[in-house]
Amino acid sequence: MTMKLSDGERQAALDSLPAWQRVDGRDAIARDLRFADFNAAFGFMSRVALQAEKMDHHPEWTNVYNRVRIVLTTHDAGGLSTRDLELARFIDSLLPPA
Amino acid sequence: MTMKLSDGERQAALDSLPAWQRVDGRDAIARDLRFADFNAAFGFMSRVALQAEKMDHHPEWTNVYNRVRIVLTTHDAGGLSTRDLELARFIDSLLPPA
Repeated sequence: MTMKLSDGERQAALDSLPAWQRVDGRDAIARDLRFADFNAAFGFMSRVALQAEKMDHHPEWTNVYNRVRIVLTTHDAGGLSTRDLELARFIDSLLPPA
Repeated sequence: MTMKLSDGERQAALDSLPAWQRVDGRDAIARDLRFADFNAAFGFMSRVALQAEKMDHHPEWTNVYNRVRIVLTTHDAGGLSTRDLELARFIDSLLPPA
């Protein structure tokens, strides 16, 4: 079973992922992205989907044309876990530096 | 320019798409779907994405593991248009009868 992060671990993780924000009222992080068009947005989502499936850890996400909002949390753990940080780092690796 | 549906057209369209619901406070329709798992959900989304790109008409959608919520409206027209009905019918064609 994946364990929820402690408060100290959570803060260190957030400090290392500056493009991600805390989600109000949930132990979760989010990143809002804007691409050139739908092709680019869905292409990005496909890359994340393949990785998510491989990790068996999936995002909550919304897409409207060229925009994608991704929320990461670990339902089994009841909050943020190391699996969210791993997926967040993978996502960041696909994108140009902020 | 795609024209918004008239009230009569909208009602006839909704009668012909029984799996879709009106969205509160918006001239839009929505369908909530549940698949066996993420593989099935994202596979479905990929089929819709290819068709949406071909039509140059894209859904607003959210995915959480095996669930997908799709909202259709035509931003250019300020509400539901025939393009939404076309995409809704394509989506329904991918799914078993309700």
